[in-house]
Amino acid sequence: MSENLLAISPINDDQVHLLTDLDVNVFTPKELDQKISPADITIMYGWKQDISSKLLDATNSKLKWIHAISAGVDYLPLATLTKRGIKLTNASGIHATSISQSVLAYILHFVRGLDIAREHQIKHQWEKNADTNPATISDYKYVVFGTGHIGQQIGRLLQTLGGHTIGVNTTGHPAEYFDETIALNKIDDRVWHADVIINIMPLTDDTHHFYDSDFFAHFENLFLFVNVGRGPSVDSKALVAALEDGHVSHAALDVFETEPLPDDSPFWSMKNMIVTPHNTGVIRHFKKAQLELFMPNLKQYLQDGSFKYNQVDLIKGY
Amino acid sequence: MSENLLAISPINDDQVHLLTDLDVNVFTPKELDQKISPADITIMYGWKQDISSKLLDATNSKLKWIHAISAGVDYLPLATLTKRGIKLTNASGIHATSISQSVLAYILHFVRGLDIAREHQIKHQWEKNADTNPATISDYKYVVFGTGHIGQQIGRLLQTLGGHTIGVNTTGHPAEYFDETIALNKIDDRVWHADVIINIMPLTDDTHHFYDSDFFAHFENLFLFVNVGRGPSVDSKALVAALEDGHVSHAALDVFETEPLPDDSPFWSMKNMIVTPHNTGVIRHFKKAQLELFMPNLKQYLQDGSFKYNQVDLIKGY
Repeated sequence: MSENLLAISPINDDQVHLLTDLDVNVFTPKELDQKISPADITIMYGWKQDISSKLLDATNSKLKWIHAISAGVDYLPLATLTKRGIKLTNASGIHATSISQSVLAYILHFVRGLDIAREHQIKHQWEKNADTNPATISDYKYVVFGTGHIGQQIGRLLQTLGGHTIGVNTTGHPAEYFDETIALNKIDDRVWHADVIINIMPLTDDTHHFYDSDFFAHFENLFLFVNVGRGPSVDSKALVAALEDGHVSHAALDVFETEPLPDDSPFWSMKNMIVTPHNTGVIRHFKKAQLELFMPNLKQYLQDGSFKYNQVDLIKGY
Repeated sequence: MSENLLAISPINDDQVHLLTDLDVNVFTPKELDQKISPADITIMYGWKQDISSKLLDATNSKLKWIHAISAGVDYLPLATLTKRGIKLTNASGIHATSISQSVLAYILHFVRGLDIAREHQIKHQWEKNADTNPATISDYKYVVFGTGHIGQQIGRLLQTLGGHTIGVNTTGHPAEYFDETIALNKIDDRVWHADVIINIMPLTDDTHHFYDSDFFAHFENLFLFVNVGRGPSVDSKALVAALEDGHVSHAALDVFETEPLPDDSPFWSMKNMIVTPHNTGVIRHFKKAQLELFMPNLKQYLQDGSFKYNQVDLIKGY
């Protein structure tokens, strides 16, 4: 039986042949019910709530595999997939280059004093103050929560620029590009004495509102808090308070509890704040990169039903 | 005969012993004429126009060596030093880490779209536009004019982030961290097709106003022009015009023809512009780092009158 793939995430016309060459039939959402019955789709490429629900709800659905085009999969009905025996792969790794470069952009912005330079530039002030000499990367200590693909790329860049890197993960197992690692439930002073905290953990029950007022209260004066993971990992109100009372000096946020970020969010206008619209993981040539990630898994799956990489553990959620 | 060093650039009290242990007498500018005659100073550490002139003009001056605490030495009377047989060393290399990190900060700011994000942030606009997806470092081509210590550090960082690096130097000789090199008088399309130009050349007769209207006119649309070398290498009016007519899209300038940058300079308020106050080379713990650079040269000099590194060719000017 040949596979029927629904390309919810679009595939370029000039690349569809890569799939059809493997005897995979490719359908677009518009062709559902017309050229193919929702129940006959076996592989879902990408996810959109309305279309995807239709496939999952179809009587006698033959769906066996969903490929999510994101790294985080918290928006999928993982319990349902478990019960139905549907396998899930994600795009972990594909965003590592772009996200890690944004994280470095945020860090260098504040470490090299571009925020201060900008204030003076607006006022046409040539201000060379010995008290505000810019620092360099090695002057600060970095803790990255999450030591997967993206976390490791962040660690690699910081190490290249002379930074000491501490990684936090579930068990404290060693991870490439980290000088030290700590288990999430055994956090110690190495975290509380950090200058820069970067969150790139998946969103799970354990990480929801992980960064709360208790967390921020540990810091005398955290230089920079970065969130490029998931918005709900941070208690927004607690972060706003920490920025106001000085427990945290600067923040760079790409993800938020509510997206789009509401017009009246204090984050927009707080000082010492960079807001980006959940686009650090967006990459140019995205369709091509996504398909390149997918193809080796597809080939393996067609042979024996397994995957080369990136299969999500539906219980753990990543 | 023991050496008499004038510390125009201050030396920390707790480090003076490193010099006195070598039988070098250390004097401060305040002690001139009191504890020691200007003519008896043999080594000048740092440079200040009034004090330094006094030493050079002293009858029967015994001055033999000047150590400049900067990389560029264009502000010293090189012809006079040549005539008088006074040796000159500079601080080339000491600023490489901080300057290269600022250059990366500038580049990532524009490449990762932090300038666009900022405009939207000010207006509380959540703008995720497919047309303005941020690029990554590997999407652009970089040409660094100047392949010395600092240029090589810039090349190293760009290569680490996936960038293709082209270096320009006097003869086109290969240089570490550059994929290709070109001779300054044989510039070709590889330069005119660049996306990012970075100047870190010393200021000499050859490089004064090197970046003029003819230079900028070659570009259809240069993404970013960075100057962390010397201000007078750029014809400011030509750069302003190039930014206005679109030959250049963005600029990041740390050095200027006139410093401090005058209040009415268009650079302060142009769009797509970062102005920093000639402070990318300023480093924390500067005195300590400077002395660490100086000491091996001092030891060698005391032995045989030569230097381990960083002796300036007074004719070339670097």
